[in-house]
Amino acid sequence: MSIAGEGLLVVVSGPSGAGKGTICKRLLETKEDLVVSVSNTTRLPREGEVHSKNYFFISRDEFQDMIKKDGFIEYAQVYGNYYGTPRKFVEENIQQGRDVLLEIDIQGALQVKEKYKEGVFVFILPPSMEELKSRITKRGTENEKEILHRFESAYREINYVSRYNYFIINDRVDTAVDKLSSIITAEKCRVDRFKMKLIGQ
Amino acid sequence: MSIAGEGLLVVVSGPSGAGKGTICKRLLETKEDLVVSVSNTTRLPREGEVHSKNYFFISRDEFQDMIKKDGFIEYAQVYGNYYGTPRKFVEENIQQGRDVLLEIDIQGALQVKEKYKEGVFVFILPPSMEELKSRITKRGTENEKEILHRFESAYREINYVSRYNYFIINDRVDTAVDKLSSIITAEKCRVDRFKMKLIGQ
Repeated sequence: MSIAGEGLLVVVSGPSGAGKGTICKRLLETKEDLVVSVSNTTRLPREGEVHSKNYFFISRDEFQDMIKKDGFIEYAQVYGNYYGTPRKFVEENIQQGRDVLLEIDIQGALQVKEKYKEGVFVFILPPSMEELKSRITKRGTENEKEILHRFESAYREINYVSRYNYFIINDRVDTAVDKLSSIITAEKCRVDRFKMKLIGQ
Repeated sequence: MSIAGEGLLVVVSGPSGAGKGTICKRLLETKEDLVVSVSNTTRLPREGEVHSKNYFFISRDEFQDMIKKDGFIEYAQVYGNYYGTPRKFVEENIQQGRDVLLEIDIQGALQVKEKYKEGVFVFILPPSMEELKSRITKRGTENEKEILHRFESAYREINYVSRYNYFIINDRVDTAVDKLSSIITAEKCRVDRFKMKLIGQ
């Protein structure tokens, strides 16, 4: 499917603990014309998480049924749970000219990139690996094994930055949000994007 | 010369009357880390123009001497007068990590693009051709023949937008300044630019 000429698909990704969730939350508060895609997952809700706001919490059977029906633009199994981005919401909003924000992990972002080359892929980096470790630990929702798992995985994942269009080092949340907002504004001024629109690709 | 990894070279261009001067002036007021390159010209000062602020007003002999010494990163003869961007100021500032803003005409911008591919080329468009005509006329510093000349030239020049990285339709100055500012912020987050920095190209 082509999305040129319509809304932007903005994919914000990066290792666990880099702070992408906070940045996206703050960006959404300032940008009215941006809608967020809520993922489906089979994992259990963490404390405070709300169905249809943080995730759609669904069963494995429901998830696997949606996979069969090509209902996801990306999905992955992470730490034994499924996570996926429903295709319908994303495509409908983009076609109606709205920018859609996806906050997803790196595996998912790379899947999306194969299908939606016109997407804007932004990689959030922690200011340092020490800081990353501290953030993952402080979250306090996982056991030690899960924490170590996440940290090792984050360490490897940082290399994927080269597959993205933009990177943001999240040393200050305000600055990081401002950069993400600027990236969206600037992308709408790109001549290449406008050319795609003209020739309808 | 390579400028990757140093300051950005931001080239703002577009047809006469599109409003690039006003946008650049306003941007400079808000961005402290941006320096503007002041051009040399052999034309006479317009009322209110100040030597070394608007232009360095120099003689034809001086100008031609600088051409021979490769002292310009671009120069052109427009309506019988020379205009040129001194090389030294631009390269020194960029090497010292400062962003340099060039507000130049389209001929000049295309010359700069051949040498400085890493530059950020932004094309300012008038909201409509009617508005463009009105702006050129209102400026009131030229005679009728010059006005017609400028309008015809502007009309042809708009096609050059395809050679630029970004375009901004100048329907509201505030919005246009914000877009230009966002483009500069976003360019500093580009992974490709960071890669150039790493490999030193």
